[in-house]
Amino acid sequence: MPNATDDVTGPTIADQLVAVGRRFYARGWVLGTSGNFSAVVSDDPLRLAITSSSLDKGALEPSHILHVGEDGVVVSGTGRPSAETLLHVEIVRRRAACAVLHTHSVWATMLSDRHALNGGLGIEGYEMLKGLDGVCTHEHREWVPIVDNDQDMTRLSRALRATLDQHPAAHAVLLRRHGLYTWGKSLADAVRHVEILEFLFETVGRTSLHSGREGYHGIAQSS
Amino acid sequence: MPNATDDVTGPTIADQLVAVGRRFYARGWVLGTSGNFSAVVSDDPLRLAITSSSLDKGALEPSHILHVGEDGVVVSGTGRPSAETLLHVEIVRRRAACAVLHTHSVWATMLSDRHALNGGLGIEGYEMLKGLDGVCTHEHREWVPIVDNDQDMTRLSRALRATLDQHPAAHAVLLRRHGLYTWGKSLADAVRHVEILEFLFETVGRTSLHSGREGYHGIAQSS
Amino acid sequence: MPNATDDVTGPTIADQLVAVGRRFYARGWVLGTSGNFSAVVSDDPLRLAITSSSLDKGALEPSHILHVGEDGVVVSGTGRPSAETLLHVEIVRRRAACAVLHTHSVWATMLSDRHALNGGLGIEGYEMLKGLDGVCTHEHREWVPIVDNDQDMTRLSRALRATLDQHPAAHAVLLRRHGLYTWGKSLADAVRHVEILEFLFETVGRTSLHSGREGYHGIAQSS
Amino acid sequence: MPNATDDVTGPTIADQLVAVGRRFYARGWVLGTSGNFSAVVSDDPLRLAITSSSLDKGALEPSHILHVGEDGVVVSGTGRPSAETLLHVEIVRRRAACAVLHTHSVWATMLSDRHALNGGLGIEGYEMLKGLDGVCTHEHREWVPIVDNDQDMTRLSRALRATLDQHPAAHAVLLRRHGLYTWGKSLADAVRHVEILEFLFETVGRTSLHSGREGYHGIAQSS
Repeated sequence: MPNATDDVTGPTIADQLVAVGRRFYARGWVLGTSGNFSAVVSDDPLRLAITSSSLDKGALEPSHILHVGEDGVVVSGTGRPSAETLLHVEIVRRRAACAVLHTHSVWATMLSDRHALNGGLGIEGYEMLKGLDGVCTHEHREWVPIVDNDQDMTRLSRALRATLDQHPAAHAVLLRRHGLYTWGKSLADAVRHVEILEFLFETVGRTSLHSGREGYHGIAQSS
Repeated sequence: MPNATDDVTGPTIADQLVAVGRRFYARGWVLGTSGNFSAVVSDDPLRLAITSSSLDKGALEPSHILHVGEDGVVVSGTGRPSAETLLHVEIVRRRAACAVLHTHSVWATMLSDRHALNGGLGIEGYEMLKGLDGVCTHEHREWVPIVDNDQDMTRLSRALRATLDQHPAAHAVLLRRHGLYTWGKSLADAVRHVEILEFLFETVGRTSLHSGREGYHGIAQSS
Repeated sequence: MPNATDDVTGPTIADQLVAVGRRFYARGWVLGTSGNFSAVVSDDPLRLAITSSSLDKGALEPSHILHVGEDGVVVSGTGRPSAETLLHVEIVRRRAACAVLHTHSVWATMLSDRHALNGGLGIEGYEMLKGLDGVCTHEHREWVPIVDNDQDMTRLSRALRATLDQHPAAHAVLLRRHGLYTWGKSLADAVRHVEILEFLFETVGRTSLHSGREGYHGIAQSS
Repeated sequence: MPNATDDVTGPTIADQLVAVGRRFYARGWVLGTSGNFSAVVSDDPLRLAITSSSLDKGALEPSHILHVGEDGVVVSGTGRPSAETLLHVEIVRRRAACAVLHTHSVWATMLSDRHALNGGLGIEGYEMLKGLDGVCTHEHREWVPIVDNDQDMTRLSRALRATLDQHPAAHAVLLRRHGLYTWGKSLADAVRHVEILEFLFETVGRTSLHSGREGYHGIAQSS
């Protein structure tokens, strides 16, 4: 009875994704119907609990969470899965992630645009970096690759895969003028990664305003 | 018994407008007694549920929602309708909108002033644009026309009508140093439009601070 | 039995001042123990309900509201009245105000410093100005006088009185690097004035960042 | 029965630290798992109630609060104490503090970096300074020393001790690109210090953006 696990675990994961939605909505990171969240329900076959498309993330309900397979097709629940389901599957496969979160904040959008020509954004020297999985010192340098936005999801998931492979140490990817994708070994890890990266984006973004004006260049922001 | 529909639908719509008020107040988009909200209750004759004038939008109650006719005269409920009722009627008529929302944020106020001489603000290349009704790609260019503010509501509604006719694809209009008008096929659509446009105004506004300083002009902000 | 009115009205006013504290604390306008609030309980003799000194405004309770006389001496309740009680009395007397609110936001603090040498800050052309009592058009020009801060409350209340007399149309006064004093014919009016002025301070403050950079000077910010 | 006090006082202190976590999380000052809080439970031997390591500060529970001794070893409760426990102990000893709070805001992070080469940040002339323990006038000049960040806690606590000794009047210390440490004679005092300093950091940080641009240098920000 392989579905037993789903039956028991499913609702809890759905409740957790609903809570993530409320939390990020309160911070203004998933306005409109932006953002989408997923968590692995089973590995083999892959089953992903994921927010269905075009929903207000501050008003999610457990029934808005679908289960999809590796090909993005719905296996349980009613609704259309997020258009970006293939990106979630790609990340789960390449990173052995248990949860994938996509947010869409003002600072992430700005930095993803501003640093696009460099192919990414380097952040180093901040204590907050230690909240990223496996990072033990503020001297860590995190490179957040930036992928060009694309409405063709097959092409975009291929570009994302190439980027993930090229930057095996990266904890996150920015889509240009689109937002943040990050993940974790658990949903709690992924939530922490969102908070840490959003904090760092705001800090780096505000700092560059001062830097530009007063000839202060203490922070290497891009490679 | 044509009023039966009103009697049944009215309270629900009033509750929804109250909830919109609380939500936007929390974000600081309707401080003071600024902002006003409406939703169509019946088409023929036109009946609009609309917030009455001079109220704290964070403390609305269903009894604060009036029903007005096409001429802006109250047909049910107690209180003075918003001074800007004619603008709501104009938008409902020209756009076949079912809901009209007016917010008054810091960023909308700033941009409506800053881009007034260009007659509007162009926003393009952002994924968030896809949340606007009928927009399927981030490559969309949204032109948000800006209308000069005016205390003469007849004159202002005429100017608004001309602007709506001149820009049939626009999802919103800014009144200079006054705020945002947007609308939708449903109240939920209109709420989503407010969130998306406020997000984009903040993003474009903050980006222009960087642009000015560092010779970065990646974003075409006005035509 | 002249106290009957106090007994009945007092608790209600205390509850309202408590609610104002929670509301402004949520917005970050009365951090630390900053800010103080008062409302007139009786005119003759003057009785003012006022927050007692050094309290967390997000955690006020009705028992934290004292009643003081014209001389600032406590007539009922336990605790030390706010050190700035005399400023409240001064405003009540000069403006026939029924409520006086003092907030301490980042933007008010910055602008009170930045425009101090001009003796005040001029704000004009914003629709939001219409929320100020008696203002009917956005073409209104509001002059917010700035008074130098002083720890000698007798001297400061004298300076405040002179400023109020010199600017009879002003709806508010800024104390330099200290914050905002505004008032109203009712507590609700005073609350609305705080929200409107804080909105305008943020708008004018942010706009001047753009202005400085890009040679844009559309707004006359000081006389 | 020396533990009786612990048994009675412990839970209450734990509840208070939990409430502090929720409050600061709401303001965005302890995102990710950043920040840590402690309060003295007994003086001799020293017992410190302190948040255990790597927790979401918005979702603390009383069971997450440990009791540690002077050497940072857990004496009651389950979990790993914060890696920075030694810094808390150092501050309690050098300042006779009853509570120590560490927050990690965007503005504190930025200023701790920007002023690091000056060894600290001077703030003067603000009314808000009066909320710092023992400060009676806005003419006070507060020097907030900045200590370089270090992953070696023994070395960092030694550096912190030297800084505390060198600046006996300081109410707080910044760790570079890491955040704020402040303290108080009570937990309420320490909370107030956090709010006041975070307010001042934002005010000084935003003001310097204007200063840089327009040749305005009214505020001495560093020695």
